[in-house]
Amino acid sequence: MHENNLLKNNPIGIFDSGFGGLTVMSAISKLMPKEDIIYFGDSAHVPYGSKSKKVVTDFAVKISKFLIKNNVKIIVIACNTASAFSLNTLKKIVNIPVIGVIKPGSVSAINNTKNNKIGVIGTEGTIKSDAYPKQIKKLNKKIQCYSQSCQLFVPLVEEGWLNSEVTNKIIKIYLKDIVAKNIDTLILGCTHYPLLKKSIQKIIGNKIKIVDSATAVADSVKSLLEKNNLIKQKGIGKYKFFVSDSPEKFKNLGSKFLGNRINKVVKVEL
Amino acid sequence: MHENNLLKNNPIGIFDSGFGGLTVMSAISKLMPKEDIIYFGDSAHVPYGSKSKKVVTDFAVKISKFLIKNNVKIIVIACNTASAFSLNTLKKIVNIPVIGVIKPGSVSAINNTKNNKIGVIGTEGTIKSDAYPKQIKKLNKKIQCYSQSCQLFVPLVEEGWLNSEVTNKIIKIYLKDIVAKNIDTLILGCTHYPLLKKSIQKIIGNKIKIVDSATAVADSVKSLLEKNNLIKQKGIGKYKFFVSDSPEKFKNLGSKFLGNRINKVVKVEL
Repeated sequence: MHENNLLKNNPIGIFDSGFGGLTVMSAISKLMPKEDIIYFGDSAHVPYGSKSKKVVTDFAVKISKFLIKNNVKIIVIACNTASAFSLNTLKKIVNIPVIGVIKPGSVSAINNTKNNKIGVIGTEGTIKSDAYPKQIKKLNKKIQCYSQSCQLFVPLVEEGWLNSEVTNKIIKIYLKDIVAKNIDTLILGCTHYPLLKKSIQKIIGNKIKIVDSATAVADSVKSLLEKNNLIKQKGIGKYKFFVSDSPEKFKNLGSKFLGNRINKVVKVEL
Repeated sequence: MHENNLLKNNPIGIFDSGFGGLTVMSAISKLMPKEDIIYFGDSAHVPYGSKSKKVVTDFAVKISKFLIKNNVKIIVIACNTASAFSLNTLKKIVNIPVIGVIKPGSVSAINNTKNNKIGVIGTEGTIKSDAYPKQIKKLNKKIQCYSQSCQLFVPLVEEGWLNSEVTNKIIKIYLKDIVAKNIDTLILGCTHYPLLKKSIQKIIGNKIKIVDSATAVADSVKSLLEKNNLIKQKGIGKYKFFVSDSPEKFKNLGSKFLGNRINKVVKVEL
């Protein structure tokens, strides 16, 4: 019993290539405010979206080992590229639950669509991996998926240009083709994109529902913890932030993503 | 004498975080077509521009060791961020000549300016390091420098949007303030930016001379090789390309930067 309580009180581990995963952390902490969370942002290697499966998986394995050393009870891959590339490898080598963002986002989109036409946007890595269409087809063969990589969205968000004229023009250029396919649901397949959600919605119109995987992932994390009897019962969640580079930058920019002030960020070398 | 010839025939080593340095390689190969060149693109860690001095220098040291193992006679840091952050460290630990892009670009700009007002644009890392203004002030105290980081230029170039309406708008936004300072010379302080040179020139007008450090660096490399009696005397230059990730992508996109087809790219882990 004591051991089980110890496990229950252990933190949730979340990682991403940078800040983006903080949108997922924000959703998890809102849903489960008692849970402690350790967040790792791989800022020395950001972005993952343009890199290969092998390299991203090497990074993901090192980070997971670091999180496990810090006694996390579950690992959340809060990055679409790393989820697409590395979830299966991590599941094999890690003996705690691991969850990515692809499946929860896909399920949420499938539950929403009425005309069975779903759009997916993400980084080059996520889109080329075809992870969302594969996952969606696995769950429902009738659904048509239309994908588009939007390489400029991450730098636009990191530059803080969330609602400028230029941003709107770029959104229009990237989304023109998939909107023309008559989709009724759009998955934001990158954890940076929720910061562009309002601008995207304005451009594609209210008839298309935007599915932001953060909330879906938070629900899945809760279910998985419940299933494994790992829900923390008492107290207020404490948060620790680690990065592989530039703690100051993470502190400043990260607060925007989390929607809360980040006070302390520790740099570690893996 | 034999040994000296051996050294003369050794290749020039060039590195960058990715493709950008190929604009420098292109200038070097045009000026010295007999020279063999080994190019290393650190695509597993691209971009350097948003990362810290410590992390970028760690990468630069590892790459330099790899180049030296491959018998290069000189190392060219064809990346502004790595030049700003790591040139002094590399000079200390390496026993062959090392050259960065900051000094040649600065000298070239100083030689051009008539009103002593120079603008510098680059990545966040290069601009924050203040490397160009420091170098320019060291050479001529009378000159006023105005800097601007342009974080979206690298992703725009990598996306291939070299001359679109959106690109022109973004150039206008970034350059408005420094152009208003009445500069007569603008340094492109990032090796990606020469691909935007035409668009930038169109927007800032022909009265401002754009200094693209690639040509200046090539001249400096030649002088340095001559001074050290290391100029290759015969033959046609052979080129080898190494990357830390995604050789296929490097092959395709790299050809644009080099202005020549790249046939073979080898991936290495450092």
